[in-house]
Amino acid sequence: MTTVFPEAEFQQRCAHAQAAMARAGVAALLLTGEADVRYFSGFLTRFWESPTRPWFLVIPAMGKPVAVIPGIGAELMGATWVEDIRTWAAPDYKDDGVSLLGETLRQVTGPGARIGVPMGRETQLRMPLGDWSRLCAALAGREMVDATGIIQAQQQVKSPAEIALIREICAIGGRAFARVPEIAVPGVTLAQLFRRFQMALLEEGADWVPYLAGGAGQGGYGDVISPARDVPLARGDLVMLDTGAMRQGYFCDFDRNWALGEATPQVMEANRILFDATEAGFAAARPGATMADLYHAMAGVIAAAGDAGAGGRLGHGLGMRLTDPPSIVPADHTVLAPGMVLTLEPALQMGVGRMMVHEEDIVIGEAGAEWLTPRGLRELPVLEWGA
Amino acid sequence: MTTVFPEAEFQQRCAHAQAAMARAGVAALLLTGEADVRYFSGFLTRFWESPTRPWFLVIPAMGKPVAVIPGIGAELMGATWVEDIRTWAAPDYKDDGVSLLGETLRQVTGPGARIGVPMGRETQLRMPLGDWSRLCAALAGREMVDATGIIQAQQQVKSPAEIALIREICAIGGRAFARVPEIAVPGVTLAQLFRRFQMALLEEGADWVPYLAGGAGQGGYGDVISPARDVPLARGDLVMLDTGAMRQGYFCDFDRNWALGEATPQVMEANRILFDATEAGFAAARPGATMADLYHAMAGVIAAAGDAGAGGRLGHGLGMRLTDPPSIVPADHTVLAPGMVLTLEPALQMGVGRMMVHEEDIVIGEAGAEWLTPRGLRELPVLEWGA
Repeated sequence: MTTVFPEAEFQQRCAHAQAAMARAGVAALLLTGEADVRYFSGFLTRFWESPTRPWFLVIPAMGKPVAVIPGIGAELMGATWVEDIRTWAAPDYKDDGVSLLGETLRQVTGPGARIGVPMGRETQLRMPLGDWSRLCAALAGREMVDATGIIQAQQQVKSPAEIALIREICAIGGRAFARVPEIAVPGVTLAQLFRRFQMALLEEGADWVPYLAGGAGQGGYGDVISPARDVPLARGDLVMLDTGAMRQGYFCDFDRNWALGEATPQVMEANRILFDATEAGFAAARPGATMADLYHAMAGVIAAAGDAGAGGRLGHGLGMRLTDPPSIVPADHTVLAPGMVLTLEPALQMGVGRMMVHEEDIVIGEAGAEWLTPRGLRELPVLEWGA
Repeated sequence: MTTVFPEAEFQQRCAHAQAAMARAGVAALLLTGEADVRYFSGFLTRFWESPTRPWFLVIPAMGKPVAVIPGIGAELMGATWVEDIRTWAAPDYKDDGVSLLGETLRQVTGPGARIGVPMGRETQLRMPLGDWSRLCAALAGREMVDATGIIQAQQQVKSPAEIALIREICAIGGRAFARVPEIAVPGVTLAQLFRRFQMALLEEGADWVPYLAGGAGQGGYGDVISPARDVPLARGDLVMLDTGAMRQGYFCDFDRNWALGEATPQVMEANRILFDATEAGFAAARPGATMADLYHAMAGVIAAAGDAGAGGRLGHGLGMRLTDPPSIVPADHTVLAPGMVLTLEPALQMGVGRMMVHEEDIVIGEAGAEWLTPRGLRELPVLEWGA
């Protein structure tokens, strides 16, 4: 067994899904995405980066999952707790696993059965659309139904072992952020800072760094999703790094801001407002509150400070994906429960092309939230910088 | 303009696609995937790591692409050469861009028109399946058809500027591999080696490292897609690292093998056979040859050495994705043309749980192939190692 979690945890995950499937009248689940397949099997590999091969996991109404996968993955899947592993020699130009998958689904379901597939918000079908049509034809008489609710309701509540891993990668991220004053020095470009920061994350124990964004600009940055440019950092810049690093298949997702040499009163105050907004979100994050409550708690702080905010959502779920449902938006009425891991991510628009974002990760406990990330500072750190 | 390529190159890409669309009777293309959107716009961001938001690019029959994207991407898309940028406030729980996309597609196509979407091998639709159904309903009277051929035929031939970037990341990978003797030392685990090697890639100039796999074992490794375990490297191990690092949105994908302290004659000979197989693939890789020809050239060397091979494909296309069509398999009759970038990746099965893989990257020129990766050695390097 080379999976991250013990077999008992996977059995519980399966049993939990199968109970929800029974309630929904779903005879089997078909999963095609990296996180879903991993969640119910322990199959952890970076090989999903290659779009060539589809991978399928079938959760029957009872018993263990069945893997229908390319032969290249048989050895690794054999080291998980999945026992029934069916392979084909992919890529097969005539039939890339579709017949084998159809046959498997027909075996574990009866005529007229409902087969659940994630089809809703934040899901994607990871197989060619043409093969999906062929699969549906091969399953004529059975109905493909949306299983998003079943999967997401379960995955958004993390087990203690999952939370421990997220806590670990958050600590790794915190140690890497603590080293930024050593690496954000005069002469360095934002692109170089990105590289050095990724190296720091790896050195501190991250397995890999799927996500890094950030920005730098005089008194604020333009957006938070751009790649780094080869432009030297400059005195007066506000610099932000936002990382999604991984440890054993689990993400952190948080950011830090620094002013280089000096900061305007507006930027200093923006940092305090954002800090206070996360404090308000943290205080509101108790079992029974909704995601909308968190939104209004944070947006209220920003509005009270006279800023219109930068719009958009103010945080989201976190775990096996960089971003997971639910979202901190007014329309999300998901009720918080112990074990949910969230990011709090308020943003301010300080002027045209000058924004600021602050993000932390929390876990919901029985009595309230707990910080998973080492807490950022209310007073924006100003790094030493030559004139 | 902050895109990697000049506007003229994107105009040529569009014109090329539009000519193929006209031949196929396709009135518009709908693209949802990271590489496809980037290819026709220059939109480069790691934000695709978040599955929350769909992103759409529409290529009309004439004129520039139209971006239909979440507002959070407007600033970055505005820095590409796309001018018509339509945004919505995502995530929108009632209508996550579907109406806006449907309206856009109705504007640029007439009733009864055929709209091309990649649906074939190695493609995925990056939007929820439920939204896809809603989109198709909103476009009733128009026909959604498979555009895989149009996209893949074009993308598999790289421009000189694209080849220059792949060459650059291959050189970066080569420099990082050259440093492995410094970091693969007694006491180091495979997991630590993975981290140190990723750091070396970043230090040598990679922007990020989306893919790293590898293996280590006495006289061979078990598979080539497993994550690294916390097991110390040992004398007699055969160690392999296989990286997909990126520079400006383009990948390298190649590997290197080392023996620690000593190597059996079988392992030394396996390395020679794999080297000779890549030489045979390289010699066969000329304009006019097919992918099947490359397969047989390499498989022939392995069979002549009395090894059954490890099965599967022996290489693939390379560019904006870690693996791209076409594949080096007997069923692939794609004809090689100048500008195609490929990996040559023969494998040997030396015994149960003991395999060996060698991979290099090449580009097809007018007169034959050229190595993009610094050439590996026919004599397996044996690193110094304590007893």
